[in-house]
Amino acid sequence: MMETRPQASSGTTGKPVEVQVPASAPTPPAPLAGPGSMTRSKPETPLADILDGDARREVPIHEHGFVALLDVMPRLVPAGQTADAAIVQAARVSYGQGTKKINEDRGLIRYLLRHRHTTPFEMVEFKFHIAMPIFIARQWIRHRTANVNEYSGRYSVMPDKFYRPTLDQVRKQSAMNRQGGAERFGVASTNQEHGGTDVSPVSSSSPPRLPNADCPMPSSESLTAQAFIDYLRESEDLYKKYLDLTNKGVSREMARIGLPVSLYTQWYWKIDLHNLLHFLSLRMDPHAQEEIQWYARAMHDLVQPLVPITMEAWRDYATEGGAVGGVKLTRLEVEAMRAEIAALKGGRGEAGHDQAAAPASTLATDNKREQAEWEAKRKRLGF
Amino acid sequence: MMETRPQASSGTTGKPVEVQVPASAPTPPAPLAGPGSMTRSKPETPLADILDGDARREVPIHEHGFVALLDVMPRLVPAGQTADAAIVQAARVSYGQGTKKINEDRGLIRYLLRHRHTTPFEMVEFKFHIAMPIFIARQWIRHRTANVNEYSGRYSVMPDKFYRPTLDQVRKQSAMNRQGGAERFGVASTNQEHGGTDVSPVSSSSPPRLPNADCPMPSSESLTAQAFIDYLRESEDLYKKYLDLTNKGVSREMARIGLPVSLYTQWYWKIDLHNLLHFLSLRMDPHAQEEIQWYARAMHDLVQPLVPITMEAWRDYATEGGAVGGVKLTRLEVEAMRAEIAALKGGRGEAGHDQAAAPASTLATDNKREQAEWEAKRKRLGF
Amino acid sequence: MMETRPQASSGTTGKPVEVQVPASAPTPPAPLAGPGSMTRSKPETPLADILDGDARREVPIHEHGFVALLDVMPRLVPAGQTADAAIVQAARVSYGQGTKKINEDRGLIRYLLRHRHTTPFEMVEFKFHIAMPIFIARQWIRHRTANVNEYSGRYSVMPDKFYRPTLDQVRKQSAMNRQGGAERFGVASTNQEHGGTDVSPVSSSSPPRLPNADCPMPSSESLTAQAFIDYLRESEDLYKKYLDLTNKGVSREMARIGLPVSLYTQWYWKIDLHNLLHFLSLRMDPHAQEEIQWYARAMHDLVQPLVPITMEAWRDYATEGGAVGGVKLTRLEVEAMRAEIAALKGGRGEAGHDQAAAPASTLATDNKREQAEWEAKRKRLGF
Amino acid sequence: MMETRPQASSGTTGKPVEVQVPASAPTPPAPLAGPGSMTRSKPETPLADILDGDARREVPIHEHGFVALLDVMPRLVPAGQTADAAIVQAARVSYGQGTKKINEDRGLIRYLLRHRHTTPFEMVEFKFHIAMPIFIARQWIRHRTANVNEYSGRYSVMPDKFYRPTLDQVRKQSAMNRQGGAERFGVASTNQEHGGTDVSPVSSSSPPRLPNADCPMPSSESLTAQAFIDYLRESEDLYKKYLDLTNKGVSREMARIGLPVSLYTQWYWKIDLHNLLHFLSLRMDPHAQEEIQWYARAMHDLVQPLVPITMEAWRDYATEGGAVGGVKLTRLEVEAMRAEIAALKGGRGEAGHDQAAAPASTLATDNKREQAEWEAKRKRLGF
Repeated sequence: MMETRPQASSGTTGKPVEVQVPASAPTPPAPLAGPGSMTRSKPETPLADILDGDARREVPIHEHGFVALLDVMPRLVPAGQTADAAIVQAARVSYGQGTKKINEDRGLIRYLLRHRHTTPFEMVEFKFHIAMPIFIARQWIRHRTANVNEYSGRYSVMPDKFYRPTLDQVRKQSAMNRQGGAERFGVASTNQEHGGTDVSPVSSSSPPRLPNADCPMPSSESLTAQAFIDYLRESEDLYKKYLDLTNKGVSREMARIGLPVSLYTQWYWKIDLHNLLHFLSLRMDPHAQEEIQWYARAMHDLVQPLVPITMEAWRDYATEGGAVGGVKLTRLEVEAMRAEIAALKGGRGEAGHDQAAAPASTLATDNKREQAEWEAKRKRLGF
Repeated sequence: MMETRPQASSGTTGKPVEVQVPASAPTPPAPLAGPGSMTRSKPETPLADILDGDARREVPIHEHGFVALLDVMPRLVPAGQTADAAIVQAARVSYGQGTKKINEDRGLIRYLLRHRHTTPFEMVEFKFHIAMPIFIARQWIRHRTANVNEYSGRYSVMPDKFYRPTLDQVRKQSAMNRQGGAERFGVASTNQEHGGTDVSPVSSSSPPRLPNADCPMPSSESLTAQAFIDYLRESEDLYKKYLDLTNKGVSREMARIGLPVSLYTQWYWKIDLHNLLHFLSLRMDPHAQEEIQWYARAMHDLVQPLVPITMEAWRDYATEGGAVGGVKLTRLEVEAMRAEIAALKGGRGEAGHDQAAAPASTLATDNKREQAEWEAKRKRLGF
Repeated sequence: MMETRPQASSGTTGKPVEVQVPASAPTPPAPLAGPGSMTRSKPETPLADILDGDARREVPIHEHGFVALLDVMPRLVPAGQTADAAIVQAARVSYGQGTKKINEDRGLIRYLLRHRHTTPFEMVEFKFHIAMPIFIARQWIRHRTANVNEYSGRYSVMPDKFYRPTLDQVRKQSAMNRQGGAERFGVASTNQEHGGTDVSPVSSSSPPRLPNADCPMPSSESLTAQAFIDYLRESEDLYKKYLDLTNKGVSREMARIGLPVSLYTQWYWKIDLHNLLHFLSLRMDPHAQEEIQWYARAMHDLVQPLVPITMEAWRDYATEGGAVGGVKLTRLEVEAMRAEIAALKGGRGEAGHDQAAAPASTLATDNKREQAEWEAKRKRLGF
Repeated sequence: MMETRPQASSGTTGKPVEVQVPASAPTPPAPLAGPGSMTRSKPETPLADILDGDARREVPIHEHGFVALLDVMPRLVPAGQTADAAIVQAARVSYGQGTKKINEDRGLIRYLLRHRHTTPFEMVEFKFHIAMPIFIARQWIRHRTANVNEYSGRYSVMPDKFYRPTLDQVRKQSAMNRQGGAERFGVASTNQEHGGTDVSPVSSSSPPRLPNADCPMPSSESLTAQAFIDYLRESEDLYKKYLDLTNKGVSREMARIGLPVSLYTQWYWKIDLHNLLHFLSLRMDPHAQEEIQWYARAMHDLVQPLVPITMEAWRDYATEGGAVGGVKLTRLEVEAMRAEIAALKGGRGEAGHDQAAAPASTLATDNKREQAEWEAKRKRLGF
């Protein structure tokens, strides 16, 4: 298809230069080889769609948001198996063949996850459709290992959808945690925005402080929460002007810039399982903004039935993020724990006299935050 | 430092399992080898700081924005050279040694850029500090190959800075280009927001439509532009409530969500030269939103003196983006051009009779947009 | 699930520190919401497997190599459509809704590809199983945007498979192209290694220089080619010692280091369509080593029926790589072309006197290689 | 610089199409604004080169290998500081301003590293020049987040350098660890290859099994180790044929394929600090092949003096890799530990009667490997 033609030396001293150039435009490419050259193999076990023929599985988030699972690779797996099978398949290429009983597959996946053999988990891919406020999208997009196609406010008029929490979802700034806030304002239930139906998916596990039914007068806190809701309403009211301006010919890319970051956007988001687990560990963490935790949990729930062995291993072995049960001990903490265990053992050994005051282990640091972290882990470990 | 200890088989059938475990906490690690084991070489030529001792080189953008160059790798280069030297150094590892006259370095860089040998350009790294509105930051962050640290509205109160174009910078929606708009509204100069001093860095090359000095009455267009400015002012007025709410204890991460995407944010952004050129080709393009074009041009200007040979080659050879002079011809366009050139040659050969109406080349497509693109390229090529 | 508990201030001066800690181990996570909270949607059109139920589609390469397509996302598409549908679906999220006739889908895909709107093409994902020699794997792995699981010579004994070209496939070093070589040694056909059955998938399009049937005596070239084959055989003979050493207890990770880079390895390789097209443009290029071109072409052929609209657009519009028909003109070449077209037009206009010697366009450079590249393009364009 | 010109509708029904096209070739681009528009700021504190004017700091590895640090960003830092300063600078953009005493910088860096705030560490960049055998390069290149320029065996003849361990460095296959081997063959010291001078950088910490001076007869193990060395010599002998074949005109890209993977290659490798730490945690781990551990340790030692605060925090807090002292506990291990600590506490409380047989904690799994891992951690923690 290509010709290689040395260029004639142009009569000067320089050496000739070879340039490869297509002799003509590519025709519809001839197949690499004859018709019989490709082998098609059928599966040993019948394949089944692990999404059961669904085109979309959607979890609603608050009023206007959602996470929808659209597709997964592998989509078709041997009947009776899950997408975990693709992880095992890839790992066996790396680590050699072996017997393939279900039980061993589970053991292999757990081993891989426990020991940071992450590449087999990259063989599973998910595609989601997500609607979320811009301030959440801005946190989300920091995960660089995904593919994204977002709705464009340059091409299209943004729909009139804004995230506005219910009155009892307004959160206080934590005095100690600079990052965010989890505590609610105390509000009277009659002030609820969305008519008593609590749409927050997280509310069952993080119940708002209950209003005092005996107190009909709005508290100071209630007033602040209401002021916040009013402020959001006011920002949303700008939508009418936005729409009017686009109708009068202002370019969409300019008109939108007065709209608040509570405006909903949406995108397609495609990511592999390894990177999804990393996303979940960061975004299901209680330090993440509560709203993005909702989305992370929805993704978790959508993915769980498709790779159940992996998700179980992740909860058993992962050590980071609020959904998992492992604990990381720093070198300093290991030292402190060794001292404390030695003291416990010593106390047991010297049976016969009371050791009421076993000294708390001390961390070799004067950093108060680090000490507090250690205290929290000590409780978690049962000291 | 590590011990490998096979675990005693626990008396059952299974084979023993070996686990490697650090015998103790790492002490400050002993150097790999004795003091004499590292060789330190001094440069043959004295090194010079290519930033001339500057800690920061900043280009202002509009009222509140800026692009500042903070650092570059290589920072110290042989006196008389530029950061282009690092590209040549890396390429010579790949392609073998040769003589190193400046002239040949230039030829090598131009060859590399022309032929998509992109990895040597990844050896140059830039670090910027940038302040831009959120709607620009959202486009920017789509470039996934950079390192980013952004100001956090969860940790800190956002400053009271918003992007508001001048009245004569308000752009119309293009009737034909769904993506944006370049045409200005016709406005009377007395309505200018920023006192007549035009701060738009791009205004000299894209002059706004001049107002009609004879028309003291605001036109319909002028009214629309003014309404847009008023709408922005209104969105900015929400800042007072934002600040008040944070003072009353609403968490910063919630309080901010009523603020518009014209709010300024800022970040540190670190990227290698290859990926920066890709960014520039997309964002200096006339199809990019005008505001991000300003930022791309500022970066171009900051980088230009540091890698002058590369930037010249990029303008000479690159074929995408508004700052470069190359042209890409599709296969269909190549076919059309061959026909047209043949016609031109034929016309010349048949000297003696008039060929006033050489038929325009036709593209083998009925796609109107594609035909228009070809027409534009034909003009560019002088047909 | 989480508790936030401010730590009691420890009686000293410092401010208290809040630490969030899980109160207990995660139980099997309660679903985000009740059973009815997830909506499952069925497709409007019945879905069909675009791989027709195949578990594997394999193209053999030379003696021991292969490229096998194992999976694709989307795997199930509306009956009658191809995986191109996923590109259109994602693009419509970004660019807004519209009518969805097949014809318009094709137009949209062609527009996206022509204008570097690359993200929709990232929504299609392919998974391959590939067996190739190590020297090819080393070039391949430089593409960093894929997921890889490779067979490990640390875990498993490497199989006894080596790449050895046939005698008539041995290539000369090009005197002018430092990168490689396309020309064959002249060899007598009786010396063929693989018994006359030509297994090279590329041989039909790149026929080797035919041997002279009248010349029974081996030429000097033939001797060199034979010496190369003998050298490879000798390197392959080391396999017996490799196997023997592993049997005697030498660790596999060490024993393998004496084996040549012609040894076959294999991996699973997962990549999205956008990055695959980039791979193809680089590796189907005549400057790529011939062996990797075979693999790229095999991948092209496997993918072609799954995304036919995209692949057609790629061949029509892409301007880089040996399989596509577009041409890139640098700024200098555009200038030269404008001059040449002006000369042609001038000649036509001045009908009546002969213009035998229209001056060849000259490129504003004294770089011989660049001039040669321009000459090649001129021919391609019909000048 | 650009014109936007709506294309005239071609008389048919379709709507006109707008195409933006550069009106002419880009001239040397006019600076964005006048000469005074860029502000140059000098540093408050004089800057110092943290490499003390070195062009290269090189650590030799075995006979022919090396790791050389060529450059770092930041290269110039305020006198008295280290490259840690760039991390603090970036973090303060994200997390807000504060006092900047050295002590607080250290606290901030330690906080960031402990809590996975990884992006500030991406602001430090290192450039290395490395020579290593191909089998090491193949493991190395799997880290996809670095920039690489490798010596090309297609462009240049490979030098005659091979990795060959000394006789006492030959390692056995571990019977239990499928991945590799750490135990040495028992060899007589008189068989040493490199004359008794031990060039292995790691030998001091991992001493080979000492030969028995009383045993002059080569043992079976010694014979195997010698057979391995002979096999490597034989593979290296192929180099002469390689060189001869290239001299006779065989293309370099083909001629090399008979050379073993012990052949040295070299590259430039540029990576940010966050990703380097990840590399180190994987490659300083005792499960990594020993040879790549040497390289990782050399990089560690080169980087240590440039970012000392970060490296100390990494050793104190990181929980993965052989160079760090932290420990990760899985959820199952946390449960087991809680039970064990409760037993210890219970034992102490019931003072007065012997508790000789405190039951070992049991892990809720029947996986032997997992149990062995837990036993190793129990010892590490002092149980």
